[in-house]
Amino acid sequence: MAAFSFNKLVIFGVGLIGGSLARSLRERAGATGRVVGVGCSAASVARALDLGVIDEVVALDDDAALARALEGADLVLLAAPVAQTGLLLVRIAPYLAANTVVTDAGSTKGDVVAAAREALGARVAQFVPGHPIAGRESSGVDAALPALYVDRNVVLCPLAENAPADVKRIAAMWRATGACVHRMSEAQHDRVFASVSHLPHLLSFALVDQILDAPDVQLKFSFAAGGFRDFTRIAASSPEMWRDVCLANRTALLAELDAYTDVLARFRAAIEASDGAALEAAFARSRVARTEWQEGGALKSPGESVAK
Amino acid sequence: MAAFSFNKLVIFGVGLIGGSLARSLRERAGATGRVVGVGCSAASVARALDLGVIDEVVALDDDAALARALEGADLVLLAAPVAQTGLLLVRIAPYLAANTVVTDAGSTKGDVVAAAREALGARVAQFVPGHPIAGRESSGVDAALPALYVDRNVVLCPLAENAPADVKRIAAMWRATGACVHRMSEAQHDRVFASVSHLPHLLSFALVDQILDAPDVQLKFSFAAGGFRDFTRIAASSPEMWRDVCLANRTALLAELDAYTDVLARFRAAIEASDGAALEAAFARSRVARTEWQEGGALKSPGESVAK
Repeated sequence: MAAFSFNKLVIFGVGLIGGSLARSLRERAGATGRVVGVGCSAASVARALDLGVIDEVVALDDDAALARALEGADLVLLAAPVAQTGLLLVRIAPYLAANTVVTDAGSTKGDVVAAAREALGARVAQFVPGHPIAGRESSGVDAALPALYVDRNVVLCPLAENAPADVKRIAAMWRATGACVHRMSEAQHDRVFASVSHLPHLLSFALVDQILDAPDVQLKFSFAAGGFRDFTRIAASSPEMWRDVCLANRTALLAELDAYTDVLARFRAAIEASDGAALEAAFARSRVARTEWQEGGALKSPGESVAK
Repeated sequence: MAAFSFNKLVIFGVGLIGGSLARSLRERAGATGRVVGVGCSAASVARALDLGVIDEVVALDDDAALARALEGADLVLLAAPVAQTGLLLVRIAPYLAANTVVTDAGSTKGDVVAAAREALGARVAQFVPGHPIAGRESSGVDAALPALYVDRNVVLCPLAENAPADVKRIAAMWRATGACVHRMSEAQHDRVFASVSHLPHLLSFALVDQILDAPDVQLKFSFAAGGFRDFTRIAASSPEMWRDVCLANRTALLAELDAYTDVLARFRAAIEASDGAALEAAFARSRVARTEWQEGGALKSPGESVAK
């Protein structure tokens, strides 16, 4: 594990993602810097303090404490729901020193970058957008693990304004947790995750929603088995988080949803026309691709790696 | 485990389902009767014979051998793809003794019953439609397990013409494998499984299909993670089987697909209108129901049990 050191890391929102970063840098990378948690939810940061994940708690609405927290901080991580990004950056801006690098962990990037530009103006150069791909159904700081990021992907979407050294520093931080760091444009990021993450969540929520409004709902749940279980596992995800993701990544998500609806219409027509050959060919192509993906075959090449 | 005995069991299609029944009755229920495998695929039954799952192989197109196989058989299981049900029953009909009870393991029931009525005429009274809910991604006789049916559900859809004693015999056979036996009408069965099994498979195949035709396909697969993995696990299922299921259960499946498309249109409108409250309420309702289902709570009551 690469060594990594920092002076002071300030984490806004100490849940699964922020808590796991703090634990990983300390317990795996041997970092000894101070970790300050800023509470969006007071109960959550208090719990993080109890667990020893952070050294100090600061309330978001306490100007003086926030100023002290950010003083001498070399790293800031925003790990609160993406919809709060703009508000948090507006709170941070007055106290942001010139040598502090800010990054985030939001699942969408276009909206985050727009909010950062609005909140920070020219100092957006200090903001390196990021997204660690490490969701779990469980959330909150109790679920935080020092090994959460080992072999996980972290996507950085550097801005034209970012200093290369700042991007490298954030990349080094994530590498120290055991993650693989990749680089994409914001637009590419949002298209990719609308497709492989946001849309499946929406589709999974939709299936449970449909059954709940259908006749025989009790009987249907009684006979739901393994296929239903796996398909709907992500329908147990956080409603608030996925509401925010759907709205934050609206443009890319609606494009993917429309393309998906077109595929369903094609499948529907094949079923109605008893076109077994078309169905079998489509299913067979999907099966091959899904199997190759699972086996880490040709399709699973990594994204463009960020320069060390 | 309940004891169960038979004189001769003839299985058409000795793969995962038929092979597991044979192994379970012998290895768990202590049955000593003869098991004959009739090959839809010659390689598959030969393998079943090699593995000791069956005692004898008969080719489907050998009239004399088929007549001998069915002579003295008290039980027949059809465990080939549902689309073959009619053809198999036409082959069986000339040699079907009056005291033989035939059942099947098809995932759809309306089409199976229609095919059985056409193939057997008045002797459809000897056919007790059934569906063991025990799919796995792996198929074939090598995947067959004696414990496959333990605590799994088996649905029987008895016909008005069936003798109650014949229905009880098939129910006893499945109970001897460790399964829980339930009873539904064919229409109810097909609606329930269109909703909780067939539609999710179609939706899962469709997501992979959509990605394969999209730009950035390689990048998308590279960054697909746990949510995608679970959502698309069933897209690695057998294309032939799911083609047949989609066509066999067309009416119920299209009704479910249309209702699902309506939910997607509602979600789409909420996203477009930035109606976060509507999205969050829908996601929260789905999350609660999915979580209760997983925990075996109020929604997971068993179906109506068949009388012993």
